[in-house]
Amino acid sequence: MPEIRVILVGPKFEGNVGAIARCMANFDVSELYLVNPCELGDTAFNRSKHGSHLLENAVTVTSLDEAIQDCFLVVGTSGVTTKGDKNYTRIPVPVREFAESCRGYREKIAFVFGREDIGLLQSELNRCDVLVTIPASDEYPIMNLSHSVGVVLYEMFQAEKTPKRCEPADGREKELMFQFFGDLLEEIGYMEARREMTTVMFRRMLGRSIPTKYEYNTVVGVCGDAAKIIRTGKKWE
Amino acid sequence: MPEIRVILVGPKFEGNVGAIARCMANFDVSELYLVNPCELGDTAFNRSKHGSHLLENAVTVTSLDEAIQDCFLVVGTSGVTTKGDKNYTRIPVPVREFAESCRGYREKIAFVFGREDIGLLQSELNRCDVLVTIPASDEYPIMNLSHSVGVVLYEMFQAEKTPKRCEPADGREKELMFQFFGDLLEEIGYMEARREMTTVMFRRMLGRSIPTKYEYNTVVGVCGDAAKIIRTGKKWE
Repeated sequence: MPEIRVILVGPKFEGNVGAIARCMANFDVSELYLVNPCELGDTAFNRSKHGSHLLENAVTVTSLDEAIQDCFLVVGTSGVTTKGDKNYTRIPVPVREFAESCRGYREKIAFVFGREDIGLLQSELNRCDVLVTIPASDEYPIMNLSHSVGVVLYEMFQAEKTPKRCEPADGREKELMFQFFGDLLEEIGYMEARREMTTVMFRRMLGRSIPTKYEYNTVVGVCGDAAKIIRTGKKWE
Repeated sequence: MPEIRVILVGPKFEGNVGAIARCMANFDVSELYLVNPCELGDTAFNRSKHGSHLLENAVTVTSLDEAIQDCFLVVGTSGVTTKGDKNYTRIPVPVREFAESCRGYREKIAFVFGREDIGLLQSELNRCDVLVTIPASDEYPIMNLSHSVGVVLYEMFQAEKTPKRCEPADGREKELMFQFFGDLLEEIGYMEARREMTTVMFRRMLGRSIPTKYEYNTVVGVCGDAAKIIRTGKKWE
């Protein structure tokens, strides 16, 4: 199983945090980060049962950036699926599909869960490499926070029976790839106002496929060469 | 989806009952039977959110027999897996396997969940046609009651519904995208011997992410523009 970090952004009810600690223990997940959480008292500890050590060891930070710092892949969770496909930052992968695509991974994956009422802000969603969703009722798809965490960790646990994968690109390599893609957009005169959003789209599209080192190198090479030729006006010999 | 009835035997915490009503609404399940439950007050109703009508319509009975009367199949749930196979009433099927085997069923299935502390009694287990279990941590497999219900109903829902996705690019659109990528390779002077393999790599990488129409259009645009600028030597105005 990949190393999994659960990040809760602005949880408001300590009972949920406690229930989440228990779910984590149920599925062998041990890293809990809390971004500006509510206070944790008896209710949280009572609900956590044999997961109380996870509450005790939870790391509290004041920004999402701090919480994801050393993570290879940042996975946002969203109960809301946009029907149209224009707002590509909201196109989520069903959690089972995502879990299966992670088989054999050994890197650290952060799952980011938003507030009970308003979820994750757009700026927080933009920090995510991929969004996952739990397919549910059309009428009422919004699950309780702790139950969403339960299902996501359940799926990651089930996917554990693994075939191995090629070595995935690491976080730094991925950022380079997106930077080269951004450079190419600039060189081809891509509308500046849309450049950032298109880079996010590219990030999400590739986030879903989890590129290997080899794939990353190839994409960097192609984007980099194209941008350089356009910039210098000289073809590669 | 088969018609599903959730039966809770002797639940002790009304918060769990409320959370279960919400999970049921999340997965389009509407029949709740309570066998000798605790009293349901504000806590239960608050936790049930948009599932409160399921609490209001819950049927309270005094024995499991009454609760399962008109059900086609009675499914017990057990967090505890007996290692040996002597006690055959305790040999459970993983919930996913069970859910998939129910595909296409239209009969009524009862899922019976036991008390928070001691689960189902042996005599209650004996009334079940099959036992399902949620594979979880060896160290601490016992989930909170409402989270167990959540996972079971989630699995039943997934087995029936194809998750809705944004419209994926169709075959012809995808081929165009790969063709444009191939053109770009040619224009940047990519080694001819490796061009085909690299196009296949690109195909595989994006095959894993299943691009939407919007994403496909964007990639075609970027590759096409870059190739054209290089070919003509003229920047886009």
